[in-house]
Amino acid sequence: MDQGTVSESKPFKPSGIITLLTDFGLEDAYVGIMKGVMLGINPGAVMVDITHNVSLGDTVRAAIILRDSYRYFPEGTIHLAVVDPGVGTHRRPVIVRTRGHVFVGPDNGIFGEVLSGACSVIHITNTGYFLSDPGSTFHGRDIFAPVAAYLSNGVSCEKMGCLIDDPVLTGIPGPRQEDGRIIGQILYADHFGNMVTNIKHEDIEVLGSGRRKQIRVMDVIIDGIAETYANKGPGEPVALFGSTGYLEIAVNRGNACRMFGVGDGEKGHIRVIVENV
Amino acid sequence: MDQGTVSESKPFKPSGIITLLTDFGLEDAYVGIMKGVMLGINPGAVMVDITHNVSLGDTVRAAIILRDSYRYFPEGTIHLAVVDPGVGTHRRPVIVRTRGHVFVGPDNGIFGEVLSGACSVIHITNTGYFLSDPGSTFHGRDIFAPVAAYLSNGVSCEKMGCLIDDPVLTGIPGPRQEDGRIIGQILYADHFGNMVTNIKHEDIEVLGSGRRKQIRVMDVIIDGIAETYANKGPGEPVALFGSTGYLEIAVNRGNACRMFGVGDGEKGHIRVIVENV
Amino acid sequence: MDQGTVSESKPFKPSGIITLLTDFGLEDAYVGIMKGVMLGINPGAVMVDITHNVSLGDTVRAAIILRDSYRYFPEGTIHLAVVDPGVGTHRRPVIVRTRGHVFVGPDNGIFGEVLSGACSVIHITNTGYFLSDPGSTFHGRDIFAPVAAYLSNGVSCEKMGCLIDDPVLTGIPGPRQEDGRIIGQILYADHFGNMVTNIKHEDIEVLGSGRRKQIRVMDVIIDGIAETYANKGPGEPVALFGSTGYLEIAVNRGNACRMFGVGDGEKGHIRVIVENV
Repeated sequence: MDQGTVSESKPFKPSGIITLLTDFGLEDAYVGIMKGVMLGINPGAVMVDITHNVSLGDTVRAAIILRDSYRYFPEGTIHLAVVDPGVGTHRRPVIVRTRGHVFVGPDNGIFGEVLSGACSVIHITNTGYFLSDPGSTFHGRDIFAPVAAYLSNGVSCEKMGCLIDDPVLTGIPGPRQEDGRIIGQILYADHFGNMVTNIKHEDIEVLGSGRRKQIRVMDVIIDGIAETYANKGPGEPVALFGSTGYLEIAVNRGNACRMFGVGDGEKGHIRVIVENV
Repeated sequence: MDQGTVSESKPFKPSGIITLLTDFGLEDAYVGIMKGVMLGINPGAVMVDITHNVSLGDTVRAAIILRDSYRYFPEGTIHLAVVDPGVGTHRRPVIVRTRGHVFVGPDNGIFGEVLSGACSVIHITNTGYFLSDPGSTFHGRDIFAPVAAYLSNGVSCEKMGCLIDDPVLTGIPGPRQEDGRIIGQILYADHFGNMVTNIKHEDIEVLGSGRRKQIRVMDVIIDGIAETYANKGPGEPVALFGSTGYLEIAVNRGNACRMFGVGDGEKGHIRVIVENV
Repeated sequence: MDQGTVSESKPFKPSGIITLLTDFGLEDAYVGIMKGVMLGINPGAVMVDITHNVSLGDTVRAAIILRDSYRYFPEGTIHLAVVDPGVGTHRRPVIVRTRGHVFVGPDNGIFGEVLSGACSVIHITNTGYFLSDPGSTFHGRDIFAPVAAYLSNGVSCEKMGCLIDDPVLTGIPGPRQEDGRIIGQILYADHFGNMVTNIKHEDIEVLGSGRRKQIRVMDVIIDGIAETYANKGPGEPVALFGSTGYLEIAVNRGNACRMFGVGDGEKGHIRVIVENV
């Protein structure tokens, strides 16, 4: 990885906090079982659910959620992430150590958005920290949960395996500049129906910060970038930089996804164009 | 507020417990992020989810849930509630202190059902307890979570801002008496399809406690107020005072909401009449 | 119970961990209220949700989830389970003590799958450990949560009531052998759509371990028992022993339940036949 030219030198001091991110849903016992395994190893672990409702196998969405959430936790937090459509195949179990945080899960791109700057990636190979007799269908329980719990107990990342320099990247596209316009795309919609793009504030600075902007989404033109949802009237679409720092298309007191008639599979194909008026 | 003529004099001694109530859903990282922020401020906070599945912007349901749940927690509990359709507008962030409990969230009526008896309401204005550089779209993360966490650390409510005496009330209607009948309404239905009214036991005492009652809902007449769901046969409607103390219409081993054909938006318009047989 | 001929002699030493399993859903405050009650009794309790999304009143699914999850928690864990369609009727509240774990809930079969080997069952009758003035509609809050919390504080199971020897069993059928074939059935499908049977590895050993097997489900014949989902091509059905140790029918990177067109009520009626090729 070109990102990995500088490895993380900051020592990792576990806070005891372990976050969980999966696509396991909340109907079965899978999440509870992982927590039981971790409490058996570290009875003092503080476990925080990020979400267990990632769409099945959606590693891109998992990567975005990790990118947007991890830095709100104290340094020393371990982020356990298991969105793992290839469980049982040869994808590697890994640990990513960066900026005082540690990530544990499969090497399938879910950590791609935190793999920048100084970071170390370790291929987990030390079976001594696995659950005894691990199976091949539930590595969250058999490998990732126990490894995360041992790390939270102070076992060093380096004991878990060996450094690698070719982790799988996410491949989330950035926006591009073309004819004085910034062309990005919708990456996902949240619970409120807000459609979040891949365009950051700095991406549109090349258009000139003093100039009024307009945003095109499908056949709709939104005038200006707002500060808050209520800058437009109820039911009107609004474009603003949301809480994650990315441009989003929302509807004041409404649901943008529904208003634009966007279905689950279509989000990634919707272009969002920012240009000067 | 007429409720506020007596301000809360009992000192607040934090237990370290913080409950969370939002309409954020469980698909995104929003709830986890708030917990991360709080653990960064108070690593020993004990956080308990009440629910994150309140219908979007349903401040009335949020107010009812807070009313029905807070008193089961020990005194010293902080209740963080963010159902906030007006985020980014001029509605005030507030703290409500009453009966040994503290509530933190937007002043939009969600605390209306706990605003009785001795209570103090503080308009949160001290930005020193906010996340640095708060945005205007996620006050749960930037304002309410850090304020709740500092309160759980022992910072006094009074340090957060200034007392106000005009908090927004909920406006949940009570039942009325008319021609020897008590006329109330369905306020919501729960997970079991039980339809819960605004009628308490004391509301029907004026009808005479020794007299047998009948309950009319839509075109159905239910004979008597039962002690438990199983007082009627399977599939039959039953009226009883439920676990929250309010009269509810249920179906033994069935779903009243479905049996009565009641849709999401209709509940508030359904009258429930209690009268003597 | 024939299982109860040997009572549990191992003393129970609470770890402070309490798991929760209910059919209460996540929209209401019911789960949060139970946690509040428990924290009021044991402020240091560590509470872990197994699931609250069991289908309403599905005691068989609850029994299976308990069977598959409890042993991943440390000894000393208390498992609070409230799937209780008969709340308010004469079914008994019970405590089951076995293998260093304790289970608390209604005696309606939900503990049937852990009632083997040495175990003690106690009918909870000591109202001194109930919430004051318990109602008849929410025993989770009024009886089971406080009893679980007192147990986690070290109160002995025996203080809660008296031993009984006739707990309700689950009645989950085992597979049968017929004409050199093992005939089992689908018991449930998980979040991934994997259809899990009642057939364990040892159940098919009578067919001879060296012989290649085929599995019939509805009109489909699956060749061989795989090690992992990816042993078949994407979209192809695969049979394997899943993480719980039972044979399951899955689809590599797909949803077996959807592929086989199996609806919610039909699972228990689908036969799965294992035979030698």
